Amino acid sequence: MTVSIDAMGGDAGPSVVVSALGRAVQRHPAVKFILHGDEAALNALLKKRLIKLTHRVSVRHAPERVRMEEKPSLALRRGRNTSMWRAIESVKNGEAEVVVSAGNTGALMAMSMYQLGVIEGISRPAIAGIWPTKKGQCVVLDIGANVECDADQLVDFAVMGEAFARAVLGIERPTVGLLNVGSEDVKGHEAVKGAAHMLRNAPLPMEFAGFIEGDDIAEGDIDVVVTDGFTGNIALKTAEGTAKLVVFYLRSALKRSLLSQLGAFFASGALKALRRKLDPRTSGGGMFLGLNGVVVKSHGGTDALGFASATDMAIEMAEGGINQSIVADRAGVRATSREAVAT
Amino acid sequence: MTVSIDAMGGDAGPSVVVSALGRAVQRHPAVKFILHGDEAALNALLKKRLIKLTHRVSVRHAPERVRMEEKPSLALRRGRNTSMWRAIESVKNGEAEVVVSAGNTGALMAMSMYQLGVIEGISRPAIAGIWPTKKGQCVVLDIGANVECDADQLVDFAVMGEAFARAVLGIERPTVGLLNVGSEDVKGHEAVKGAAHMLRNAPLPMEFAGFIEGDDIAEGDIDVVVTDGFTGNIALKTAEGTAKLVVFYLRSALKRSLLSQLGAFFASGALKALRRKLDPRTSGGGMFLGLNGVVVKSHGGTDALGFASATDMAIEMAEGGINQSIVADRAGVRATSREAVAT
Repeated sequence: MTVSIDAMGGDAGPSVVVSALGRAVQRHPAVKFILHGDEAALNALLKKRLIKLTHRVSVRHAPERVRMEEKPSLALRRGRNTSMWRAIESVKNGEAEVVVSAGNTGALMAMSMYQLGVIEGISRPAIAGIWPTKKGQCVVLDIGANVECDADQLVDFAVMGEAFARAVLGIERPTVGLLNVGSEDVKGHEAVKGAAHMLRNAPLPMEFAGFIEGDDIAEGDIDVVVTDGFTGNIALKTAEGTAKLVVFYLRSALKRSLLSQLGAFFASGALKALRRKLDPRTSGGGMFLGLNGVVVKSHGGTDALGFASATDMAIEMAEGGINQSIVADRAGVRATSREAVAT
Repeated sequence: MTVSIDAMGGDAGPSVVVSALGRAVQRHPAVKFILHGDEAALNALLKKRLIKLTHRVSVRHAPERVRMEEKPSLALRRGRNTSMWRAIESVKNGEAEVVVSAGNTGALMAMSMYQLGVIEGISRPAIAGIWPTKKGQCVVLDIGANVECDADQLVDFAVMGEAFARAVLGIERPTVGLLNVGSEDVKGHEAVKGAAHMLRNAPLPMEFAGFIEGDDIAEGDIDVVVTDGFTGNIALKTAEGTAKLVVFYLRSALKRSLLSQLGAFFASGALKALRRKLDPRTSGGGMFLGLNGVVVKSHGGTDALGFASATDMAIEMAEGGINQSIVADRAGVRATSREAVAT
């Protein structure tokens, strides 16, 4: 197993990536790593971190980088010499199984689609995110790749989501729900109604729970939450904002009296645990599903812990054989639809 | 000012409504109230609560009620004898200015549209909700009336939202943001891009902040958040679920050790304040905007406090002259669009 890394992505650049590499090298003794980026800078950082260039860790020089605010279409046109392009290229030419980047999300998706292509039978890739729940975690997709989605695409997302839940979360028969404005059959627009109809009879290794609402996500009874990229992105960011708001309220409430300050002091361990639980860095970033290759996007503002988690996630996805599952499961759904049409 | 009340709506029925009436009668000494519902049951409850039938409080018998799970189309067809229909009718025939109900949301919207009609120049009514922020509160609309919205409708929502913020929240020049998946001009689908284009040059008493993202809502820099009813409903419920999740985490973290239990004891006052701040009952429910009349929907599972807040909100909306503002502001936008087309 080899991990290809875009070492120049993210707001903090290569220092965070090399620091994360230190953790990853220790955590995965059988895995190789290729760093793409400014060779001189990377070699200096590796030296500083006492990471040796061995058969397990190598550096490939890339003279340019994709800027965080660059338009994806421009990056795609002019970007052949960037660390991001080269990192994806390593997966394309077979020397690595997975690629991790903290760079520009749109450019990473555009370059990945161009170089790796989409899995046969899947219309468009999606970005999946891990969401904390009362009972553990669930996966939500799409969280931003596709602004408008039809019923077929939502079915694709359900297939990719259940494959992810099985391969990475280790859930044998994941429960899949379609995000909607009500749980009754008549609710929602044509895309969600059409997808519900197809998923109800699909021969997939999952339990289809039908429509779910926004407040069902955190309850934890649903393993895979399927939605379009517009709604999913807004729901995710709204949840992040709300979590911050509650912690903000809590902090100001605890400052109000001497007694509650004392309480906050005694409870500080518990509050630290809460912060850890809500830390988006531990969630592994955004997983690009539906590509011929595993691509994981770490948060742009990530630190070494976050980038290392994203790397863990990429390795687990490849080891779990997620793409083989997606191909097999999607083919099953298609065959059944054809039979249904034929009869 | 007269408030017409559907006394039979909500999960708990008339006892909660009559208890809320007790508060409202005291809080608004110049306002009259008409209760629609089962006369015998209501008279008994009023007697129990020591609320006298005076020129300020009257009961109108309605033999039927709309069920909480009833289809709106069915309720509209068969519902002329229900307390909900009759409560709206009081506004239609001019004996009341506002109507409050904790009943079936879809039926309340359908009956209100049928009886009161939509304000001229507005394509469809929307449901607005109050959202707590770090700096106070903001209004979000649509939170569920319109599953699919075009650019014109989003512009209508912006007009209704700024009118609400001025009339009820008392903000002279509200800041209005369009919810999207990114703040750059190129992001999002045609409806949000078209609405942004129109709002940028609209002669409205507001500051247009352009596109905002989900995590901007709770920050509190935006007074009016405009979105379609699908996204808005899911964002709202996701936020509610997230707030519950954080409180759940906090509670389990505080139970973990003796020290943190001690801390929780000392901090219990602060935790109570937090709970109050997050209590959806204090937010006044869902405000129906764009109808010829003021309609407020209290939470179905509300208690007396929640129903009383919804009643307060309805009175403030009418006193603030929200519908006059909507008519005037919308006409201004239309005139400018015509000029733009003409030149």
